[in-house]
Amino acid sequence: MRQAAHAGVFVSFEGIDGSGKSTQARALADRLRAQSDNVVLTREPGGAAGAEDIRRLLVEGDPDRWSPETEILLFNAARRDHLEKTIRPALEAGKIVICDRFADSTRVYQGAARASLRPLVDKLHDLVIGVEPDLTFLIDMDPQAALARGLARQSGEDRFEELGAEFQTRLRAGFLALAQAHPERIRVIDGAHSPEIVADQIEAEMRDWLRARAA
Amino acid sequence: MRQAAHAGVFVSFEGIDGSGKSTQARALADRLRAQSDNVVLTREPGGAAGAEDIRRLLVEGDPDRWSPETEILLFNAARRDHLEKTIRPALEAGKIVICDRFADSTRVYQGAARASLRPLVDKLHDLVIGVEPDLTFLIDMDPQAALARGLARQSGEDRFEELGAEFQTRLRAGFLALAQAHPERIRVIDGAHSPEIVADQIEAEMRDWLRARAA
Repeated sequence: MRQAAHAGVFVSFEGIDGSGKSTQARALADRLRAQSDNVVLTREPGGAAGAEDIRRLLVEGDPDRWSPETEILLFNAARRDHLEKTIRPALEAGKIVICDRFADSTRVYQGAARASLRPLVDKLHDLVIGVEPDLTFLIDMDPQAALARGLARQSGEDRFEELGAEFQTRLRAGFLALAQAHPERIRVIDGAHSPEIVADQIEAEMRDWLRARAA
Repeated sequence: MRQAAHAGVFVSFEGIDGSGKSTQARALADRLRAQSDNVVLTREPGGAAGAEDIRRLLVEGDPDRWSPETEILLFNAARRDHLEKTIRPALEAGKIVICDRFADSTRVYQGAARASLRPLVDKLHDLVIGVEPDLTFLIDMDPQAALARGLARQSGEDRFEELGAEFQTRLRAGFLALAQAHPERIRVIDGAHSPEIVADQIEAEMRDWLRARAA
């Protein structure tokens, strides 16, 4: 699946657990929806009926039930389904697709778990996904601050404490390295401000981007 | 996962739906077990707890719920899990692993559905599986004969009639082409004889192969 010219806009939100990225994805969707019914809010893993079934295999049961390689295959199966059933049709219909996590999460989480997995992640992405968001908001936050603010607990998945602060620090570094490698696509947003201020900044950047594209 | 030297023997059974390959896999396991407790009978998709969960995604629900590409990813996820959790540990313990279907089925079924999928099938196999059986018994049977003998119905999955005789004919040709390309590994067995005669022939070939390897 190659990157294709499309009328829509594909926006992803990335960040460590508790960074507030899901809240911000929803906030941007709500603000854009106030003026347009052309907005689709979705998430990964999941975002389509089959992909949500695969998500359950990934998030339920013993966290060690899959090897990293099997997990990467399942993430790509879910992503391919999500792309075919939800993202691509919406983009082709000219919609703004706002996605809570996309391929950057797989790159960073699997890379933080074991750096040697990154070539497999990249080859699989090239082989079966091949699409990047037009724009990615990386909500950057110090893991300790995320913990102190209790954002991690609001996620309801207890992922933060399960993975540990040291691992979250590696994830943060991984996301920032990706942002440095892809400045054309990834905007780093300081998540330390209040959710309202962060949402204002993202909305402003989004509107600038849309204006620049229209021009 | 590269092919590794191991003490065990990895045997797969392949063939069209209704060819009797599952019956023959079980028969060979039973015959070898009469003399040894070193035999593991398994199947694909499935053969390990996680892989069986993925199998349910593949065999249940609307047959069109997955695109061919997503389906190939799910087959590889299940196969990787099966390999890690069941096949490889058994081979390393010196056992004879008898597997009802393996990667040849993915090659032939996906190739028969759409020939252009074969490069994706091969690249994924190289990337995440990389292992072939030591010996493959291809139970060859004319699709009409399989239908007439009612073998297709015994499978309980109604796959034969669902896929159609014309598709089964293409599958048969695909399996025979693979056998021609890999004569060092794939033995073509005439499935038109009675199950007992077919089982005798397979057992004889298996024992010859084991003797040759021991020598």
